[in-house]
Amino acid sequence: MSLEPALRDRIVASVNDGFAEQIEFTRTLVRFPSLRGAEHTIQDFVFRSLRDFGLTMDRFDMDRDAIARHPGGSKISAQHSDAPIVVGIHRPQKETGRSLILQAHVDVVPTGDPALWTHPPFEPVIEGDWMFGRGAGDMKAGHAANLFALKALRRIGLQPAATVYVQSVVEEESTGNGALMTHLRGYRADAALIPEPEDEKLVRANTGVLWFQIRVQGHAVHVREMGAGANAIDAAYRVVGALRKLEAEWNRRKAGRAHFENEHHPINLNIGRIEGGEWASSVPASCTVDCRIAIYPGTRAEDAAREIEQAVAAFARQDSFLANNPPRITFNGFFVEGYVLEPGSPAEAVLARAHQAATGRPLESFTTVAYLDARVYALYDQVPALCYGPSSRNVHGVDECVSLESVRRSTTAMALFIAEWCGVEPAR
Amino acid sequence: MSLEPALRDRIVASVNDGFAEQIEFTRTLVRFPSLRGAEHTIQDFVFRSLRDFGLTMDRFDMDRDAIARHPGGSKISAQHSDAPIVVGIHRPQKETGRSLILQAHVDVVPTGDPALWTHPPFEPVIEGDWMFGRGAGDMKAGHAANLFALKALRRIGLQPAATVYVQSVVEEESTGNGALMTHLRGYRADAALIPEPEDEKLVRANTGVLWFQIRVQGHAVHVREMGAGANAIDAAYRVVGALRKLEAEWNRRKAGRAHFENEHHPINLNIGRIEGGEWASSVPASCTVDCRIAIYPGTRAEDAAREIEQAVAAFARQDSFLANNPPRITFNGFFVEGYVLEPGSPAEAVLARAHQAATGRPLESFTTVAYLDARVYALYDQVPALCYGPSSRNVHGVDECVSLESVRRSTTAMALFIAEWCGVEPAR
Repeated sequence: MSLEPALRDRIVASVNDGFAEQIEFTRTLVRFPSLRGAEHTIQDFVFRSLRDFGLTMDRFDMDRDAIARHPGGSKISAQHSDAPIVVGIHRPQKETGRSLILQAHVDVVPTGDPALWTHPPFEPVIEGDWMFGRGAGDMKAGHAANLFALKALRRIGLQPAATVYVQSVVEEESTGNGALMTHLRGYRADAALIPEPEDEKLVRANTGVLWFQIRVQGHAVHVREMGAGANAIDAAYRVVGALRKLEAEWNRRKAGRAHFENEHHPINLNIGRIEGGEWASSVPASCTVDCRIAIYPGTRAEDAAREIEQAVAAFARQDSFLANNPPRITFNGFFVEGYVLEPGSPAEAVLARAHQAATGRPLESFTTVAYLDARVYALYDQVPALCYGPSSRNVHGVDECVSLESVRRSTTAMALFIAEWCGVEPAR
Repeated sequence: MSLEPALRDRIVASVNDGFAEQIEFTRTLVRFPSLRGAEHTIQDFVFRSLRDFGLTMDRFDMDRDAIARHPGGSKISAQHSDAPIVVGIHRPQKETGRSLILQAHVDVVPTGDPALWTHPPFEPVIEGDWMFGRGAGDMKAGHAANLFALKALRRIGLQPAATVYVQSVVEEESTGNGALMTHLRGYRADAALIPEPEDEKLVRANTGVLWFQIRVQGHAVHVREMGAGANAIDAAYRVVGALRKLEAEWNRRKAGRAHFENEHHPINLNIGRIEGGEWASSVPASCTVDCRIAIYPGTRAEDAAREIEQAVAAFARQDSFLANNPPRITFNGFFVEGYVLEPGSPAEAVLARAHQAATGRPLESFTTVAYLDARVYALYDQVPALCYGPSSRNVHGVDECVSLESVRRSTTAMALFIAEWCGVEPAR
């Protein structure tokens, strides 16, 4: 049951009418350097923005014990954010439609050397169709779109005819515990929509992710006695070699696996950070390597972790140095499963119509090999979890940027989706 | 012309008489955490100690321009020490003997994780024959021995009958520029003695050393696009692999090379420090690797540097990522040649007699594959440069310690050497 054409056209026009303000709001979000652990001020800004829009507000901390007990809880390290989760609640006058979670995260990944950026990463600049800045694509444009899709309805005197939770979370880039915390707090709806920068496509399936740190500890000696000591950096890189073999094995297991067997390289092991030694002339005594690896949906994080530990232990046993100095593995972040959005849900059908109306093109779906918070709603709420948002470039990279015309189109699709999924009623 | 037995016995007894004080002085030196750049206070303490002993004092800074112009000057980085060089000058009443430089360095290498140490590294502890502490062996025991060998003569009313320079330098562990600065200042003598912890043996030959940093710079991307980006840490380790081949080639060149062809592995490439990336989930954009490699005596540092640069460039050209992102190499410390102490010098003969008298054993010589400041006196002063000092354990490692009985023996040998080489006259 699609929207009336007249209503559809009014919504499209309303998104356009609010778009200058939406861009400005997005720029404001990008200006917050909301790196891991530093999301306090942006969450307060989001709290005030949602409250000023008229939503009922809920703000809460992570319950670390509850997260640790839940099978979808990731490992909490010293770097874990303690910024709050913010939820704005819309309750309709008459609950006639289907309820919805609109979710976005405010945390962003590190910038790398700011000198490599054309513009400072937290000073958003628009050039042509592109807004540049760390987080512009991932996912402050989408975060703003959640609010501005609702604002587009309000501008024409409407509001969703069902409960809508606007959730602003942290820790999406490192654990996914923020999204899990909304589940643990008890939020449930008939569907969830997360406007991650997915090139105006719908995510059909994605991988789970594990983070772990390998620590190799030897003993320092004078370089003249290199044979007597053991270079912990060299030893750590031998462990990386063993993990590359495990990665290859896991990639071979894509055979026969729906949504993944046609991916070129679905399982990526990333050596994300390394640090070892003190200076050139001492044989280094220790080295740590921070790793990230993906797992297929249906694979439990614990099982993958055990396989990693066993692979490293087996390699270490036959390495003369590592046998006496076994590497230690600490799982220190993501420890989560992937998910599949089963085709055929009513929510997907509504999004497909909204997308067609907003863009003139059919909705495509695809598999992504990175973590998404949608897994919480898919796996534990067991509702359709739609990950769909604007086109971007260089997400997590230098000169990250988002296409503003794509933001306009996807915001339009979102507003149309909300209107059809939730239904509309006169705004209070 | 060896020492009179009676004089010899008086010197041996005098070293023993002063040994408790010598140990206490050594402990005081070890308590200074004289890491690179932090040698100011120990140099002031040394200045006062030599002055109080009655030496004429000279204290001067490094002349960085003069060092840069000298073929034996190493590269000066931001980490280079600006602590002064301290020289105490003994001039005899009658210059009848042969002059001597007694040299030692006060800088020590990093401690590594202090938690790995049995005792805190800068709180010297004596257990049985061993004094523990960073720098106890390398080379504060030797530094103290320089002064206490002279004190042993003074205690029996004697002093060298020739000019003796007691030089206390810095930067021995990173550039050798401190020793070079004593040369540039104009200090010259008929021989030099440096009591490095050489197991009561004489260094016959040693390698030169180069320090360099490799920097690989890629561009960060989301881990889901690993193929599009390039992992700078992985790329840096591929460069290390190429350098290992160069190391193997240089080791093959030991064939037919006196003093080195019987060494198992004379050329060590040490990967001393590595740092790259920001966190587990971003493909790292940059990685730096600090390296140290040895070169044979007679090989110029510039020629070795060019070979390193060419090897890395040749490897990078055939690596799909590195070809477009060529690694940068910066020589940032040691840039020095090795030396050979040609057998047969009168100075060596005097030391051999002194050693035999102090220890009851003939003097052995050996090749060491690490840097020694003796190269300055050998290559540029062109005098016999005797590197000879006490036995130690774990130099540059955890729980570094020096044998006190070995310190006693080598101090005795040094005092006997001074007495015969310089001759003696009544102390003022």
